[in-house]
Amino acid sequence: MGRGPTVALDGFGAEQGFEVLAAGVRLAAGDGIDVRVFGPPPELGLDGVDGIEVVPTSEWIGNEEDAVAAVRAKKEASVVRAAADVAEGRSDALVSAGSTGAAMAAATFGLRRLKGVQRPALAVQLPVPGKRVLFLDVGANVEVRAQHLVQFAFLGAAFSAAVLGVERPRVGLLSVGEEAGKGREEVVAAHAVLSAAPGIDFVGNVEGRDLPIGVADVVVTDGFTGNVALKLMEGTAKTVTGAIRDAARSNPLAALGGLLMRPALGGVRRELHPDTTGGAILLGLRGIAVVAHGSSGAAGIANAVRLAARCVEAGAVDRTAALLQEGGAGRGELAGDRAERGGA
Amino acid sequence: MGRGPTVALDGFGAEQGFEVLAAGVRLAAGDGIDVRVFGPPPELGLDGVDGIEVVPTSEWIGNEEDAVAAVRAKKEASVVRAAADVAEGRSDALVSAGSTGAAMAAATFGLRRLKGVQRPALAVQLPVPGKRVLFLDVGANVEVRAQHLVQFAFLGAAFSAAVLGVERPRVGLLSVGEEAGKGREEVVAAHAVLSAAPGIDFVGNVEGRDLPIGVADVVVTDGFTGNVALKLMEGTAKTVTGAIRDAARSNPLAALGGLLMRPALGGVRRELHPDTTGGAILLGLRGIAVVAHGSSGAAGIANAVRLAARCVEAGAVDRTAALLQEGGAGRGELAGDRAERGGA
Repeated sequence: MGRGPTVALDGFGAEQGFEVLAAGVRLAAGDGIDVRVFGPPPELGLDGVDGIEVVPTSEWIGNEEDAVAAVRAKKEASVVRAAADVAEGRSDALVSAGSTGAAMAAATFGLRRLKGVQRPALAVQLPVPGKRVLFLDVGANVEVRAQHLVQFAFLGAAFSAAVLGVERPRVGLLSVGEEAGKGREEVVAAHAVLSAAPGIDFVGNVEGRDLPIGVADVVVTDGFTGNVALKLMEGTAKTVTGAIRDAARSNPLAALGGLLMRPALGGVRRELHPDTTGGAILLGLRGIAVVAHGSSGAAGIANAVRLAARCVEAGAVDRTAALLQEGGAGRGELAGDRAERGGA
Repeated sequence: MGRGPTVALDGFGAEQGFEVLAAGVRLAAGDGIDVRVFGPPPELGLDGVDGIEVVPTSEWIGNEEDAVAAVRAKKEASVVRAAADVAEGRSDALVSAGSTGAAMAAATFGLRRLKGVQRPALAVQLPVPGKRVLFLDVGANVEVRAQHLVQFAFLGAAFSAAVLGVERPRVGLLSVGEEAGKGREEVVAAHAVLSAAPGIDFVGNVEGRDLPIGVADVVVTDGFTGNVALKLMEGTAKTVTGAIRDAARSNPLAALGGLLMRPALGGVRRELHPDTTGGAILLGLRGIAVVAHGSSGAAGIANAVRLAARCVEAGAVDRTAALLQEGGAGRGELAGDRAERGGA
């Protein structure tokens, strides 16, 4: 194909339907990204579009299914076939806007973990105006041990440097206070290991209020807290902008003011919209996997495909593997292993 | 005194200093609330103000101290003396804008727990426009078991009904998905108990994005997630309003628009400001204890004192005790005990 990276896209599960998904694929293909879509050709309506190939697929995995069991049982499901396409080298990256659980399971089974990685983590770039803040884990691991948090720090720092272009990423640990002793047992133990870890610029604990400010380039937490926090940021941004919109409608002068401000506010709205960052990346695998927001519009789908392509072009997997090796994973002494011995 | 409730106020630790604290006390006293302030008379400058008595106190507990150890050791510290004032019946409620840990320890030791309560929880009313959403625990217990979450649900429902005037509070459990099986082990176990619990209107799991919308009147979580979430809401609201303010300054037309909208936006700003709700309430004790935001302005201090007075007038402690009894605490079979046997 030779135009650029090839992305394998799960053609099912996008909440806004096939038409919106297809519109997103067209946008991404227009940028020179080849996309192989695993879904139903008639519904997608993408036949003959340059750079797009529809691989006819009729089976899929829904949100309500047990993700791990379904991925094991349904070899013909769209997300499983898309992951296999990457594993077999026909595509360079997997993207899904379907069940997050199924996408994570299909990617983990299909692409396998990097050497030394115990638990892959789901990372997102936060919609912080003017900053590139990477936040993980946002849902892959609802329960973690200290060594997992330490690994997330290394995985996040590697991705921030390789794909987001942050030169020496500052890494923070989400907790309930700045002091080293604040937080859950595993957070306190991870803090101790990261403080002494070579090869990482650890800035200590960061609090909830620091997260949207961008005091660190990478913020690490468990998948329960991270999932709640990410959705809460989205919900709060929506509530605040909604309250401001209501205020703008409360009297004629305010309405005129709102009208005059509208062009300037468009940029804010775009920066805060979940579609802008394109989705979450599953870090720690031997391949690229991006999970788009289930409610993504066409722009969200396109941005997820673009994000996957950018990861491929940046050599994210190789660079992450190299940084993990530097951190000691190859010598069986990744910082996290020490947490296991020293911590809880 | 006979004018209304008497509040014992910790005169130390407010980040904005004695002058701002004193201004807040004057505002509250103007509403007919008697305040006994434990602090240094010259710095407070409150001598001779109607309804205000300064109890000369020079010792205090700082944020950097080990709260539990300091409360045990420093019997003359302002927050310890204020708690004792409530325990001895001279005041009706404790308010502190100092170290949250010290205030919680002083209140727990001084006021003691209600029968059947294992862990007091810190609750706040969220700044959700037009709703009265109570959120707990926001920091008293960074690690919890299922039965603690169940107790928080009962404590929160009792407070919502007694003080916030919500007739039949709908109670939700914060988790990473709506399905009963989603979340940490203790969340899943608490969900099972609450689903079957009589005397509580349990609406199931709520997600981070639901929290600022007000889908439930009471939302329960552990003190780690709750503390991160509360501070994140504050930080996100600040970031979003800041981005909108910047947008309004980006060109002359937008600036004019911002000027026209300003009066209407004042209400939004007030609703979102942490000072508006007055602080967090420690639930599960035999007395009222309110922890004001450390960075409270005069309005924040005044609102914390008003909140404490409102709790006294509503008979919050007696009504909470009665609701816990109904829930089975008195018969040693509070729903939470079942979680302990049935759960993790």
